[in-house]
Amino acid sequence: MIKAMVHRIREVMIVLVVAVYVKATGAKPYWSWASVSPEDESYCLSWRLAVEANNVRGWRTVPPQCMGDIENYMVGGQYFRDLHFLVDLILSYANEIVLSDDRMDAWILDVDDTCISNLFYYKGKRYGCDPYDPAGFKAWAMRGVCPAIPSVLSLFNKLIDSGFKVFLVTGRDEETLGQATTDNLHDQGFVGYERLILRTAAYRGQSAVKYKSQIRKQLSEQGYRIWGNVGDQWSDLQGEYLGNRTFKLPNPMYFVP
Amino acid sequence: MIKAMVHRIREVMIVLVVAVYVKATGAKPYWSWASVSPEDESYCLSWRLAVEANNVRGWRTVPPQCMGDIENYMVGGQYFRDLHFLVDLILSYANEIVLSDDRMDAWILDVDDTCISNLFYYKGKRYGCDPYDPAGFKAWAMRGVCPAIPSVLSLFNKLIDSGFKVFLVTGRDEETLGQATTDNLHDQGFVGYERLILRTAAYRGQSAVKYKSQIRKQLSEQGYRIWGNVGDQWSDLQGEYLGNRTFKLPNPMYFVP
Repeated sequence: MIKAMVHRIREVMIVLVVAVYVKATGAKPYWSWASVSPEDESYCLSWRLAVEANNVRGWRTVPPQCMGDIENYMVGGQYFRDLHFLVDLILSYANEIVLSDDRMDAWILDVDDTCISNLFYYKGKRYGCDPYDPAGFKAWAMRGVCPAIPSVLSLFNKLIDSGFKVFLVTGRDEETLGQATTDNLHDQGFVGYERLILRTAAYRGQSAVKYKSQIRKQLSEQGYRIWGNVGDQWSDLQGEYLGNRTFKLPNPMYFVP
Repeated sequence: MIKAMVHRIREVMIVLVVAVYVKATGAKPYWSWASVSPEDESYCLSWRLAVEANNVRGWRTVPPQCMGDIENYMVGGQYFRDLHFLVDLILSYANEIVLSDDRMDAWILDVDDTCISNLFYYKGKRYGCDPYDPAGFKAWAMRGVCPAIPSVLSLFNKLIDSGFKVFLVTGRDEETLGQATTDNLHDQGFVGYERLILRTAAYRGQSAVKYKSQIRKQLSEQGYRIWGNVGDQWSDLQGEYLGNRTFKLPNPMYFVP
């Protein structure tokens, strides 16, 4: 009960921080915020739709003319509304599931830009218009200051309260980022998960599809029933042992193969 | 050469017809056409994104508050721009393929709202806010007047000109709609495909995923290499023998399981 209240307060505070940030950067509603030409807006709508529908694959950077559109989308409110919509959808699915007594009903959540956000970092990378910078991202992740994504934190808590075992599965390297990631998640209210699974040396260099498929296979072989699998990358949601339903959260800023 | 010119003229004419139609109905650019409240617009953006990313499944009607948004999207220009974007993307993929001499390099295209459009019909069904009406749709399809989707007709012609064998695979019933569909496609310029495959009695009542998987399996067993598979429904692009790449065209008006 007290735990639930603490989570709720945390959630409200996170929403407030995001709101203040958006306000401080002068964000207006999505459709009127930054100056994007109608041609660019139309093109970037097509591009974002194609990314989310898994039509554009293997892309390395956001098209340069889409920086303004993506800033509008990510910071102007629609991104958070999309997440809110999806979390409602996920919960209406989760609420239909009848859990068994064996406590082996499981969910998988990705970490980066699913549980915790790299939006502040990517703002400095022109929302993905700059190419991937492994050292820069590592330094950011080491700081352990990624804020929770409020609606996903709420989903996380509701899944745990319902009795699901929640597994957080990330491509982050265990050796270098394990402690920072564990602390970051804890600080942001992700408490009570079954296991945080990071990439060990054995999986280094593998694609996310291959690595995460093997992790899900192990969980399935341990007897877990994966009811849902949530991630911001199609590579979280492809391959084998996908789970009963997958949910793609939006992310127009980067692509993980 | 003459065939290509005829196709090109046809294509330009179809674009003109669509343009005149849009003009006649008073369509303005996407973002300023119909009167949709910002709240509804935001909600419907989330809904459409969730449909295209395969997050919302098994839906029977468009949310009633989204009729205006979907009309704007379908008739205001963005739908056609999204299709144009995707066809460019598909062609840039197709152009990389080195064809074999055995003439077994194949593509699969869906028919309804991939090759030919049911937009005029669905306008009368409040863009999908009304429930599916099998008799009404059959009567519409029997008329054989679905216009070509210009960018997909262009893709179709370019694939054939490149040497691909194009298979049109549709869930339409062969017995009742075979002739009308064949004529409709021909009238709209879809000439030169390898085979039009309609649903025979053996597949009646099966889900599109199951039916289309079996068709693709047969083609694969006949030795065809399916390089691409294009459809407006996720059920066109799921199941088995999917082909090397799948491409999801937008369709916020209906869902085929």
